[in-house]
Amino acid sequence: MPELRKDPVIDRWVIIATERAKRPSEYQTSVEEKRSGPGCVFCPGNEEKTPPEVFAYRNENTKPDTPGWSVRVFPNKFPALVPNGQARVEQKGIYTVMEGVGAHEVLVETPDHSVLLQHLDIPDLERVVRAFRQRYLALSRENKYVLIFKNHGAKAGASLEHPHCQIIATPLVPKAVTEELQGSKKHHAAQGRCVYCDMVRSEVDASIRVVFDSDQFISFCPYASIFPFETWIVPKQHANDFGDITEEQVTGLAEAIRETLSSLERTIGDAPYNLVLHTSPPKDEESKEHYHWHIEITPRLTTIAGFELGTSYFINPTPPEIAAEALGRSLEGRGVH
Amino acid sequence: MPELRKDPVIDRWVIIATERAKRPSEYQTSVEEKRSGPGCVFCPGNEEKTPPEVFAYRNENTKPDTPGWSVRVFPNKFPALVPNGQARVEQKGIYTVMEGVGAHEVLVETPDHSVLLQHLDIPDLERVVRAFRQRYLALSRENKYVLIFKNHGAKAGASLEHPHCQIIATPLVPKAVTEELQGSKKHHAAQGRCVYCDMVRSEVDASIRVVFDSDQFISFCPYASIFPFETWIVPKQHANDFGDITEEQVTGLAEAIRETLSSLERTIGDAPYNLVLHTSPPKDEESKEHYHWHIEITPRLTTIAGFELGTSYFINPTPPEIAAEALGRSLEGRGVH
Repeated sequence: MPELRKDPVIDRWVIIATERAKRPSEYQTSVEEKRSGPGCVFCPGNEEKTPPEVFAYRNENTKPDTPGWSVRVFPNKFPALVPNGQARVEQKGIYTVMEGVGAHEVLVETPDHSVLLQHLDIPDLERVVRAFRQRYLALSRENKYVLIFKNHGAKAGASLEHPHCQIIATPLVPKAVTEELQGSKKHHAAQGRCVYCDMVRSEVDASIRVVFDSDQFISFCPYASIFPFETWIVPKQHANDFGDITEEQVTGLAEAIRETLSSLERTIGDAPYNLVLHTSPPKDEESKEHYHWHIEITPRLTTIAGFELGTSYFINPTPPEIAAEALGRSLEGRGVH
Repeated sequence: MPELRKDPVIDRWVIIATERAKRPSEYQTSVEEKRSGPGCVFCPGNEEKTPPEVFAYRNENTKPDTPGWSVRVFPNKFPALVPNGQARVEQKGIYTVMEGVGAHEVLVETPDHSVLLQHLDIPDLERVVRAFRQRYLALSRENKYVLIFKNHGAKAGASLEHPHCQIIATPLVPKAVTEELQGSKKHHAAQGRCVYCDMVRSEVDASIRVVFDSDQFISFCPYASIFPFETWIVPKQHANDFGDITEEQVTGLAEAIRETLSSLERTIGDAPYNLVLHTSPPKDEESKEHYHWHIEITPRLTTIAGFELGTSYFINPTPPEIAAEALGRSLEGRGVH
């Protein structure tokens, strides 16, 4: 069973994989896996190589764990957290530990091994977003938090090439989420407004960091971008909980993801990136007024190194104004800006 | 002038390099620089290619910025922070910014381009540690914090191969430091003891995570290691401020660094790593009882990806007990364990 261990000094938990521990020799042989076609466990025809699916969009008259799906979700074969156990904090001398309870799922975005997420048709992308919502709502019943994210490219942490996202449900509200909840609460207490709504207004007014702008969503390079070409997608309508996304917003988000990732691709090529959904904890009444769900896309062209580890601050050699100009320009003439 | 921008929601600052900004095309051509010999700007004979040195250990009768040095320190040619400016926080609408005031220096550890830090003789390593102390004390006069760190290998953020450390002095106490100060203060208030002293005692007693143990220093894989083979070097004598390191400890630290990095090299090869000195702010009376300076060495065999960015938590596939066993075993029979 995985273990969650807490740093004795700071509020930082680490999931220690005690069961399938990697020994020194396993690092020396590790290489990027790019097996496509018959070798790819995420490709149609290889469904029996993954744990049984928990959700899928599939053609009528096809059975679970057979081909015929367009989006398929199943538990990770090597989970960071597992469903059965005691989410109870224990003290071992000066150390704090709990069982690694939660869930870890893989969401395969498309049967097509070599397509990129932004190249999917809008109806296919909508199904990906709906699958996010379905798993978010299902996993939020038993867990404190549900994190949905995508690692694209080896430098961003992807170990398999076939387009997929991951969903990790945790027995604690993560530190990064708690900090956003606290920060947005403070802003709301002082200003009486949601800080993300303020950011949207401010970015629309200034317009120098906007990448994509529709009725439903805006994407922009944030003022304090920690990575070059970092881009956030924010719904214009205030809502703290991603679980409340409407059908109209599903379409809007599919379009925003497609256009934002496409402009990144045209500007910096098929670069590695992380895409992380930031939402309040499920059904969190307390943060209803002050928190605002959104997506953060962080290309990984720079390295998190000693300065970042030692300070929790970042060095970004590309001002967001320069990034947004290049990204926005790449959308011009395509009728979407 | 670089800019320090604060995230509007959380306490996270980013240094935005506005002057020598990288444009999209510059990322597409970036490659790892490994120029040795005549092409390496850190090699002897190329002193004029760096800014003038601010400190060096050099042979008698040799002039500054000429060969004959064993350790050489100079300002970074492309600094993240610069000495002249106003360390004053400004508000621009909803955003917070300050000038990027501070210092950014390079400490070249040896004239030998292709040696590894752990292969230096103890007297050479002592000079490196003394140079840390000299720059720490010099830069702490004008700055709130002085961070000393080493990025080794491209995956750990090193852009030049020649062995070197970096020193960044900041106009703010970084968030990661503040969190350690707060956490250790809390432990001291509750327990009446330093949490790092407690960790040292606990690790010596348990002995399953100890890598190296001498009169002056202990190195161990911390209980909540966030990276595989993460190893901390902690002085056994309580002290919050690295600036107070004694001459006896300089020798002890040189030995601890050599043995710890050597055991890592024997176990996981010449892997990329960051080495970060964690100290209280200079002359910080407040943390004298509860903080404890130390060094954190973090091999970079895993990737900081979506989960880590979205949670500030980590997944570590190698339990520190397994790491320490392998590292400790590599020291056995060498008479140093």
